Amino acid sequence: MSYVKALKCRECGHEYPKQPTHVCEFCFGPLEVVYDYEGIKKILTKELIGSRGPNMWRYKELLPIDNDPTVGKQVGFTPLRRASRLARLLGVSELYIKNDAVNYPTLSFKDRVVSVALSKAKEFGFKVVACASTGNLANSVAANAAAADLESFVFVPYDLEATKILGTMIYGTNLIGIHGTYDEVNRLCSEIAGKYKWAFVNINMRPYYAEGSKSMGYEIVEQLGWNTPKHVVVPMASGSLLTKIDKSFQEFHKIGLLKTNEAKIYGAQATGCSPISTAVKNNWDIFKPVKPNTIAKSLAIGNPADGFYAAKTVHQTGGWCEDVSDEEVIAGIRVLAETEGIFAETAGGVTVGVAKKLIEQGRIPKNESIVLCITGNGLKTQEAVRLGKPPVIKPSLTEFDALVKDKIK
Amino acid sequence: MSYVKALKCRECGHEYPKQPTHVCEFCFGPLEVVYDYEGIKKILTKELIGSRGPNMWRYKELLPIDNDPTVGKQVGFTPLRRASRLARLLGVSELYIKNDAVNYPTLSFKDRVVSVALSKAKEFGFKVVACASTGNLANSVAANAAAADLESFVFVPYDLEATKILGTMIYGTNLIGIHGTYDEVNRLCSEIAGKYKWAFVNINMRPYYAEGSKSMGYEIVEQLGWNTPKHVVVPMASGSLLTKIDKSFQEFHKIGLLKTNEAKIYGAQATGCSPISTAVKNNWDIFKPVKPNTIAKSLAIGNPADGFYAAKTVHQTGGWCEDVSDEEVIAGIRVLAETEGIFAETAGGVTVGVAKKLIEQGRIPKNESIVLCITGNGLKTQEAVRLGKPPVIKPSLTEFDALVKDKIK
Repeated sequence: MSYVKALKCRECGHEYPKQPTHVCEFCFGPLEVVYDYEGIKKILTKELIGSRGPNMWRYKELLPIDNDPTVGKQVGFTPLRRASRLARLLGVSELYIKNDAVNYPTLSFKDRVVSVALSKAKEFGFKVVACASTGNLANSVAANAAAADLESFVFVPYDLEATKILGTMIYGTNLIGIHGTYDEVNRLCSEIAGKYKWAFVNINMRPYYAEGSKSMGYEIVEQLGWNTPKHVVVPMASGSLLTKIDKSFQEFHKIGLLKTNEAKIYGAQATGCSPISTAVKNNWDIFKPVKPNTIAKSLAIGNPADGFYAAKTVHQTGGWCEDVSDEEVIAGIRVLAETEGIFAETAGGVTVGVAKKLIEQGRIPKNESIVLCITGNGLKTQEAVRLGKPPVIKPSLTEFDALVKDKIK
Repeated sequence: MSYVKALKCRECGHEYPKQPTHVCEFCFGPLEVVYDYEGIKKILTKELIGSRGPNMWRYKELLPIDNDPTVGKQVGFTPLRRASRLARLLGVSELYIKNDAVNYPTLSFKDRVVSVALSKAKEFGFKVVACASTGNLANSVAANAAAADLESFVFVPYDLEATKILGTMIYGTNLIGIHGTYDEVNRLCSEIAGKYKWAFVNINMRPYYAEGSKSMGYEIVEQLGWNTPKHVVVPMASGSLLTKIDKSFQEFHKIGLLKTNEAKIYGAQATGCSPISTAVKNNWDIFKPVKPNTIAKSLAIGNPADGFYAAKTVHQTGGWCEDVSDEEVIAGIRVLAETEGIFAETAGGVTVGVAKKLIEQGRIPKNESIVLCITGNGLKTQEAVRLGKPPVIKPSLTEFDALVKDKIK
């Protein structure tokens, strides 16, 4: 039983049947999934959701597959944690971390979109799946395809972090490094998708794939006792996640699971690749593609596919965008780890750094609820953080006493 | 409200009040927590458990803290996943992976024991916590202490994997490398514990700490629809986890949540550090401490504190022990990743390798349910797996066509 009615062009409104396609044939606008919200409203209650397992499929009526999921059945429902120590440091009263750094199976929010995309690819009958990736998506497609017995091809910039390379190859995928930026990888993949007729999760499967991100927003609402926070800070690569978190709140409001939806949504980028935040901060109507130069490689998309819609969402909700230097990214990673015991990847450092900046600017008020979206695990981007080596002593109490004598009162 | 009655010596039965101590003053036997099972039986129902959040504290009556947890409130309830592809490869009919590689917050089962130990340490009024660790415990103590605003000291062998060093230091702990094996680290820590009066989670807090492992067993039972599997394979370092999984099944049986408990429990070690499996396989009554030499560093305890009890549990349940070479460990990691999309650390490779061996030996029958306990994440022990580099091409369809022309039909 599916509540998906069709695909629909976000620009001209032309409708298409459910098929593996992502661009309007008439105006080249992006296609989006359309649901029967009246039907969903009749059946999807808080009680029904609460009776289901702790994973993203507890909201399955709002996800675009026709049958029960076949891939990634245990993805999602990651912890939302009150972050009192970080809140104190930032001078705010009510702060939460939504922690996809422990998402199953590959420790990033990409497991959400991939489980939808691959479940849908199986429904369409594909045997081969593929993606262009800055790293997290590579890990997730490789792992979930392996578990689902699908062949996979994964395309990444050749200079990706070693951990993201190993954390992809381990699953036995066909990993191919491309001499170029993510944007060049992406263009090549569009050509390959056209020729080889595979399910490219973020190309021809994109309308379905992107919907998976909504589950992060649904979970935030449920975990806050069926309320949105007042402010949400979201890292932006393509910008898709930010738009989908907004969509999740709107949908819950539409089907009666949220009384009000006043959440303001803020986009976070690294200054070394900040096409969206630059456009928002300058009130530009157009985007200037950039050549990325930042340690936040998972966000290094210089020509973001959903940048326009992300900026629109930020404006419509009353949010804002900011970007931070690589030094601020590292500081953000460290402060989150030291105060909350959560080790996030560079994108998480971006989110924390931008939140700090927006709070200092007064754009996010100090006395209202704030959620920071942490989208990936710090073990994946270890190169970014250099902490030196710990002291080494012999196994001797005397040596230990000497080592700590100044430290211990 | 606590159901803990006392601490009790496993050997002579002498009882002690709840205090931070772990050894019997009379016979030097290890102390264990004693519960009021009659009281627990009256209140802890499947319905009550089912009404609680998806974390280990849904079984809080069976965990040894007096009040609600203050540390690690969102730890546990990790996925139990049917592993059909790996099952096919191993020639068995019903196989499951219990996946603590995605445990919150530091991706190993140690978050379970640490959240109990630190919650208890706070109840006792400690301000400083500490541990001797082979790596995973280091990560977990550092992270959870940071989040709980406790100062921490973490002692590890100096030659630990780089990821486990960084994944500890990032939380701002006092990390100290010791020139020696884990067993030497542990001996030093006993001296430090005596002098500095800190809460060493696996020394003076050990009776409480070790109980946290039971939650992995409770979850397996609940996730299998309130049944034990017929066979469980558990990696062994100190041997404690194995004994506690058995204890969890016994307790659930005792309080009426399990009709029968016929689970056979199997211990897995790396051949390069296999004091427990060697003793079991040779029917020895005593253990020969060994000097570890294996890539499975998280299991590299040459003189295992609970080895005697682990061997006893294996015998009593009708299980067995085995050990595997480092090559088999790597093969185990790879086959789990390639068939199930789960990237486990070296200890997981040990578990998969030993399961394969026990199935081939006929010790584990092919037509009964089997659970493999995966206790840590593969990103932590990347050095162990060398996969080379992926091919790199220019962003050109022609180059891609040439690369895959032999691969694609």
